[in-house]
Amino acid sequence: MAEQEYRVEHDTMGEVRVPVDALWRAQTQRAVENFPVSGRGLERSQIRALGLLKAAAARVNQRLGVLDADVAGAIARAADEVAAGEHDAHFPVDVFQTGSGTSSNMNANEVIATLATQALGRDVHPNDHVNASQSSNDTFPTTLRLAATEAVMTTVIPALEHLAGVLETRAAEWSDLVKSGRTHLMDAVPITLGQEAGAWAAQVRYGAERLASSLPRLAELPIGGTAVGSGLNAPEGFGAAVSAELAAVTGLPLIEARDHFEAQATQDGVVEISGQLRATAVGLFKIANDLRWLGSGPRTGLGELALPDLQPGSSIMPGKVNPVISEATMMVVAQVIGNDAAVAFAGSQGNFQLNVMLPVIARNVLESARLLAAVARLLADKVLTGTEPQVDRLREYAESSPSIVTPLNRYLGYEEAASVAKQSLKERRTIREVVLERGHVPGKLTEAQLDEALDVLRMARGGR
Amino acid sequence: MAEQEYRVEHDTMGEVRVPVDALWRAQTQRAVENFPVSGRGLERSQIRALGLLKAAAARVNQRLGVLDADVAGAIARAADEVAAGEHDAHFPVDVFQTGSGTSSNMNANEVIATLATQALGRDVHPNDHVNASQSSNDTFPTTLRLAATEAVMTTVIPALEHLAGVLETRAAEWSDLVKSGRTHLMDAVPITLGQEAGAWAAQVRYGAERLASSLPRLAELPIGGTAVGSGLNAPEGFGAAVSAELAAVTGLPLIEARDHFEAQATQDGVVEISGQLRATAVGLFKIANDLRWLGSGPRTGLGELALPDLQPGSSIMPGKVNPVISEATMMVVAQVIGNDAAVAFAGSQGNFQLNVMLPVIARNVLESARLLAAVARLLADKVLTGTEPQVDRLREYAESSPSIVTPLNRYLGYEEAASVAKQSLKERRTIREVVLERGHVPGKLTEAQLDEALDVLRMARGGR
Amino acid sequence: MAEQEYRVEHDTMGEVRVPVDALWRAQTQRAVENFPVSGRGLERSQIRALGLLKAAAARVNQRLGVLDADVAGAIARAADEVAAGEHDAHFPVDVFQTGSGTSSNMNANEVIATLATQALGRDVHPNDHVNASQSSNDTFPTTLRLAATEAVMTTVIPALEHLAGVLETRAAEWSDLVKSGRTHLMDAVPITLGQEAGAWAAQVRYGAERLASSLPRLAELPIGGTAVGSGLNAPEGFGAAVSAELAAVTGLPLIEARDHFEAQATQDGVVEISGQLRATAVGLFKIANDLRWLGSGPRTGLGELALPDLQPGSSIMPGKVNPVISEATMMVVAQVIGNDAAVAFAGSQGNFQLNVMLPVIARNVLESARLLAAVARLLADKVLTGTEPQVDRLREYAESSPSIVTPLNRYLGYEEAASVAKQSLKERRTIREVVLERGHVPGKLTEAQLDEALDVLRMARGGR
Amino acid sequence: MAEQEYRVEHDTMGEVRVPVDALWRAQTQRAVENFPVSGRGLERSQIRALGLLKAAAARVNQRLGVLDADVAGAIARAADEVAAGEHDAHFPVDVFQTGSGTSSNMNANEVIATLATQALGRDVHPNDHVNASQSSNDTFPTTLRLAATEAVMTTVIPALEHLAGVLETRAAEWSDLVKSGRTHLMDAVPITLGQEAGAWAAQVRYGAERLASSLPRLAELPIGGTAVGSGLNAPEGFGAAVSAELAAVTGLPLIEARDHFEAQATQDGVVEISGQLRATAVGLFKIANDLRWLGSGPRTGLGELALPDLQPGSSIMPGKVNPVISEATMMVVAQVIGNDAAVAFAGSQGNFQLNVMLPVIARNVLESARLLAAVARLLADKVLTGTEPQVDRLREYAESSPSIVTPLNRYLGYEEAASVAKQSLKERRTIREVVLERGHVPGKLTEAQLDEALDVLRMARGGR
Repeated sequence: MAEQEYRVEHDTMGEVRVPVDALWRAQTQRAVENFPVSGRGLERSQIRALGLLKAAAARVNQRLGVLDADVAGAIARAADEVAAGEHDAHFPVDVFQTGSGTSSNMNANEVIATLATQALGRDVHPNDHVNASQSSNDTFPTTLRLAATEAVMTTVIPALEHLAGVLETRAAEWSDLVKSGRTHLMDAVPITLGQEAGAWAAQVRYGAERLASSLPRLAELPIGGTAVGSGLNAPEGFGAAVSAELAAVTGLPLIEARDHFEAQATQDGVVEISGQLRATAVGLFKIANDLRWLGSGPRTGLGELALPDLQPGSSIMPGKVNPVISEATMMVVAQVIGNDAAVAFAGSQGNFQLNVMLPVIARNVLESARLLAAVARLLADKVLTGTEPQVDRLREYAESSPSIVTPLNRYLGYEEAASVAKQSLKERRTIREVVLERGHVPGKLTEAQLDEALDVLRMARGGR
Repeated sequence: MAEQEYRVEHDTMGEVRVPVDALWRAQTQRAVENFPVSGRGLERSQIRALGLLKAAAARVNQRLGVLDADVAGAIARAADEVAAGEHDAHFPVDVFQTGSGTSSNMNANEVIATLATQALGRDVHPNDHVNASQSSNDTFPTTLRLAATEAVMTTVIPALEHLAGVLETRAAEWSDLVKSGRTHLMDAVPITLGQEAGAWAAQVRYGAERLASSLPRLAELPIGGTAVGSGLNAPEGFGAAVSAELAAVTGLPLIEARDHFEAQATQDGVVEISGQLRATAVGLFKIANDLRWLGSGPRTGLGELALPDLQPGSSIMPGKVNPVISEATMMVVAQVIGNDAAVAFAGSQGNFQLNVMLPVIARNVLESARLLAAVARLLADKVLTGTEPQVDRLREYAESSPSIVTPLNRYLGYEEAASVAKQSLKERRTIREVVLERGHVPGKLTEAQLDEALDVLRMARGGR
Repeated sequence: MAEQEYRVEHDTMGEVRVPVDALWRAQTQRAVENFPVSGRGLERSQIRALGLLKAAAARVNQRLGVLDADVAGAIARAADEVAAGEHDAHFPVDVFQTGSGTSSNMNANEVIATLATQALGRDVHPNDHVNASQSSNDTFPTTLRLAATEAVMTTVIPALEHLAGVLETRAAEWSDLVKSGRTHLMDAVPITLGQEAGAWAAQVRYGAERLASSLPRLAELPIGGTAVGSGLNAPEGFGAAVSAELAAVTGLPLIEARDHFEAQATQDGVVEISGQLRATAVGLFKIANDLRWLGSGPRTGLGELALPDLQPGSSIMPGKVNPVISEATMMVVAQVIGNDAAVAFAGSQGNFQLNVMLPVIARNVLESARLLAAVARLLADKVLTGTEPQVDRLREYAESSPSIVTPLNRYLGYEEAASVAKQSLKERRTIREVVLERGHVPGKLTEAQLDEALDVLRMARGGR
Repeated sequence: MAEQEYRVEHDTMGEVRVPVDALWRAQTQRAVENFPVSGRGLERSQIRALGLLKAAAARVNQRLGVLDADVAGAIARAADEVAAGEHDAHFPVDVFQTGSGTSSNMNANEVIATLATQALGRDVHPNDHVNASQSSNDTFPTTLRLAATEAVMTTVIPALEHLAGVLETRAAEWSDLVKSGRTHLMDAVPITLGQEAGAWAAQVRYGAERLASSLPRLAELPIGGTAVGSGLNAPEGFGAAVSAELAAVTGLPLIEARDHFEAQATQDGVVEISGQLRATAVGLFKIANDLRWLGSGPRTGLGELALPDLQPGSSIMPGKVNPVISEATMMVVAQVIGNDAAVAFAGSQGNFQLNVMLPVIARNVLESARLLAAVARLLADKVLTGTEPQVDRLREYAESSPSIVTPLNRYLGYEEAASVAKQSLKERRTIREVVLERGHVPGKLTEAQLDEALDVLRMARGGR
């Protein structure tokens, strides 16, 4: 391998050797050397947010007289390239770094300063120009909230809505397929497969709704608070203007933080959205788990659904096919639960004017959003679209459940009905046979009433 | 001790010996014997909800022709006594029981049936009358949601608003008390104590807001779904009518579940509120932690606040006083985080038409609500009301922080300003002295500009 | 209700009104008033440990010349009563209190001082005598570790061993009952029910082993460190002597902490045991979950086991019986996971010479131990002892699984075997039929080899 | 970009297009298409383990007559290349895949089959040869346990021992530096900085010890169990032989699983090690947190330690330097806590003969190990080695703490001592002055006794 060549850069602490082709400078390089921890940097979505923010800040700095048009323009253009992902290779700082994300903010400042200097042919300074009117303490959490808001609104919610739509379509198709309900895993009164799928759809719709309900607290941007929330060194109105600029560029409902001191000292709003992602994930777990159970078998399981065959399931058992998307989904949920635990812990550890667990919070909440959206689409497109109900088995189950005695409570009372169910089960006879044998018809009910009472599809519709 | 005397009760499984004075009957007794686990039963708030629900159901059952007026009235009166807490001693079933809460539902049915039978002088049946049109599968989660909604709205949110109010009052009183900001625990630019307390107040207000934002998904009641969500054995409109009755009685925004199958198969909405309680708790942790740190000392700590002396702090070190309410609060937060982890886990484990982890979900979310409300009030009334700022120390800190060089960035540039700060720190001289010595006045700024730039209260107000 | 009467007590902060019959004094009373949080005090097992410790300390204080024999004897006798549970009603302090547990330590000191004073007829002081040579900072964590060690060794491990024994007995009885294995919930190659139960037994044995492996770090006692670990105000050898005394009295492997500063500053050893309880709980979840699934049905589930009928399962569906102990167990696991999350969080929050989250750590780890032991015994005694395998269904499943084609890999290769399995499944014919039809006998294997290959019990034994 | 070219591969489900240069085949390709979830594959350490296992299995298969020498040799050589990391680019399968890890096992089988086929010039089959005597169900968890055991023994424990060694060195150097203890963040009796650092060292040593104590349950390998634990299709002794081979190659204490059914059905042993990593992480949190607090300031914090300057701390506040390694460490701990929550959840979700959450368990536990080892070394090498105690401030704090009155308890009693401390604090006078003023010398103690009692270094050594 060719030996790496270096150039010398300096910062307020002295000189540093930087790879000769790197767009970054001294502070980024120090961070690279200080933090050989995970081997992973920021999420792409947060680098994008850094680019968007630096561009917006440059434009507002120009408007408010902090930067001249040439410098501001050069910064904005360079920042747009960063947002677009053209320079991701120049963001080498590990996510486990200084807790304020200063190293990543300076990484952005340095890369953009280098690009702008090259373009402009005149020195653009990482701090004095690119970071003008800003501090890591307002920029980094701003990029976290921007990226999280964008992920929730443009990735997660649309994926959930897509899944809900597919579920609703299937629920409509399956509205007459009667089957046995199950509670405690035990035979219960009948439902339709459409009702079951409809409940899954409802869960997913609620998921989208709960994420949306938390956006007002997530979409508030700390920008404008600078070092501690007071806005020192930023011109009046800077935070509001940058927030409006970002809202315009992205189409997201971003607004300036109501209390800048709160917005930097805490990450409660991000802990909240993490919890909402988790509640939604927990819902997906139930759906994925139900699906694999209903598809279990083919001979020794429940066998109510045939899930699509996606890949050979076993390296040793020939012909085996497994519910792999359900499993991937369930593992994503485990990860989201874990990521959320990390976020909640980190969120509790703010002190005074800053929470210095920001990068780990960002990593976890942004990853959770990405993962959830991905599996919601896989469930919809690779599983539900191709799932085939096993109609005969569904009805057979519905009719064999001893719980179909339940509508007879009104005629026989709960205790006699229980006795009928037990006899039916013990002697492997139908509820109808036992009721007739016991002489309840016509003593307690007519044959027509018995027919109506034992109609499983009618039961699934509430007996009405 | 006198020997316990027994009477014989029966249920569909046979005979059971029940303590002679017990209001409960066979099924409760079986549960007592089956579940010797924790020694604790349901939360009081859920027993109350059971009473409220049984009374409302009786009234609606009468209105819809399921029960006659005498039986319905006797049930409603007995249930109101249960709601009021008059029979708590007759709810002996452990919280770790069957996962549907059937044993507690039957406990309520049996106690109310016994009371109603005694009052009416005629047999009132636990299943056929008290539980008419209901199933454990809709009643138990209804009581969970009712109790949780009531706890959030009448206990937690008012406690948070009280705390926020006290914090806002103190913030206003402290609006001129300048102090050093701290980021990364290190000296930063000045803020006022009022701004710091204002951020705490904002956190608490957000807490109340986020809890309120989740109520639409929490306050939906499963009642009316009976066994599996279909409403089998309940008259048309039963769920809506009982929900309306409960809303009227309690003044809470309770409504019928939008999808009864979802409402029984999952507990996503309760997982959500648990996450919201946790996000709010995480916010309280930061406040309690800041308070104890600002009050640390008296000689070797930060010493910015004098917290009220509540009790001797040490059994061995005479005269020591500790921030005990902060500590109790922080321990409550740890518990809420733990309770929430239990709720999320349990919430993921629903299968098909029922989640059978209901009692453990109920225990944890209801306890979290109780604990949070309690410590929010303690923080307000036992700590913040009596906290005394140490004004001299606050200002001394503000003026000694090397970060007060920050406003000079615009005159000197970031790098020269850093050099000034470092010399000041190293030589233990003021920023002003170093700036003057370096000849920046009047070269880079006038003395008036220097004065203005180094005004710490002005800095705290954003330099404007 | 009669009005409460009071007497006046004092401490270093002044006077306090205490209920006239209370054995406690001023500091306990302050704590009662300061901490109206959860309504629950310490676990019984920790009050017992407080009594044991105070008695041991008194005897050692006498031996080392700190207390005279009369005072020491009176303290020891009173403390023994506390240990025995005779004065639990006089421990009213909430578990959410000062984070050092000072209030509970003083509660013990005060109750014992009162009892000893009454017995001796001469003043015994809570601090100067009962607490002699001690601090809350070494006593409270000592009682936590003593109680946790005792719970693990005398409650949890014996319960696990009991459960493992029952499982091993059943495994032996079931060693010839062949059934289909299941992986991914899908039909797999055969196993015996004995192998399945044996794996459960192994899990439980590992659980006991892992708990035992952590005792060396749990059973170290901080006593002797007094306020900060240095042992100031305690005589030389005090910690070792008290530890030895406690080991002798309890029969537990208690020893003096290797590093007293570590033992008070951190609770890592308790976080460890909490994690071990959780790993064991996670194992129980799998067992309880498998049991309820194998017992699911009776008509629409797997139906391999008939679990004992313990109580009616539904308030609306007559005759329904549910796997209630499995469910209680699974809920306990959810609680243990939650409790453990609280412990880990609290364990991370130590500062300098003390972790001040001690009471919440104690509550959670001691409760987890209690709950786990209880459900391990219930699983053994109420479920496994009475479980009946459904022998015919087990064998039928074993023979119908398409995965029984697996031993043919060696004759046909994986790909042809997969093709056989798929045809068998599609045409609902046996593997044998398809193999013969395809003419593999005698081309690829003899009929005897085919017979041997398709012998399901032989397969369960590894094909050997 | 050049268009990707493809070749056609097939498996038991049909044909698949695979990139022309890919070493993988059809099943890997299906998985690539089925699981576009996280964008990340297995941890490097697990790919290494897959290579080691496939090589060992090939050698044992040869020895036991399953494979001929040529094929076995070609497989072993190819597998060694995989272990060495030469083909990581050919492991494209996402970690969120089928829960058994079958796709990654087949990925290894296919890559190795391709390499072996190329080398041997004759067809080596992924299933029939590379996977001979194996199943994903025993190989994948074997690689997880092998990788985790290796990570704990060769990465984490050595890093912890390095950190402990550095801490012990500093503790020895600092053994005479007296300072004030702090409990509840409040002034307490004196300790030495050496004692404080010694407690940190003890924590880290315990961490290494607890990890080691769990290895007996981690280092058991499922290999030999094949599909469900019975060892079907593997020759007698295969598991033991492969385990021994792997132990020999790696030098790790790997052994065959005691119960193969348990080893595949559950991951309790991995949940255990995850909990142990977490307990150790929680210990590191306390150390990192103490360090940043002791280094807080320079003007408004505790200022007891000067931590090394590693990089500029603020993009806006010139001259600011922050405790960045402490922060990175604390964020790693948050991640480890989160990862562990994911592992525990996933660990609980096994069913019957397999836990199908394996890849997510592997990802989290292996990442936690990597991260912890990295920050343990950073703390040692970038922080502790260069930390400078601020000796004067330490002593000043020690002498100003009002708790130095504690040794006077024995002369004055706890209550009078408390009164002295309070007067001293209120009037800002020394304890000595107040004691003399109150006339306790020579009434209660001599001046020599007073001198000895107030000697802070003596106090730190327990007053002895």
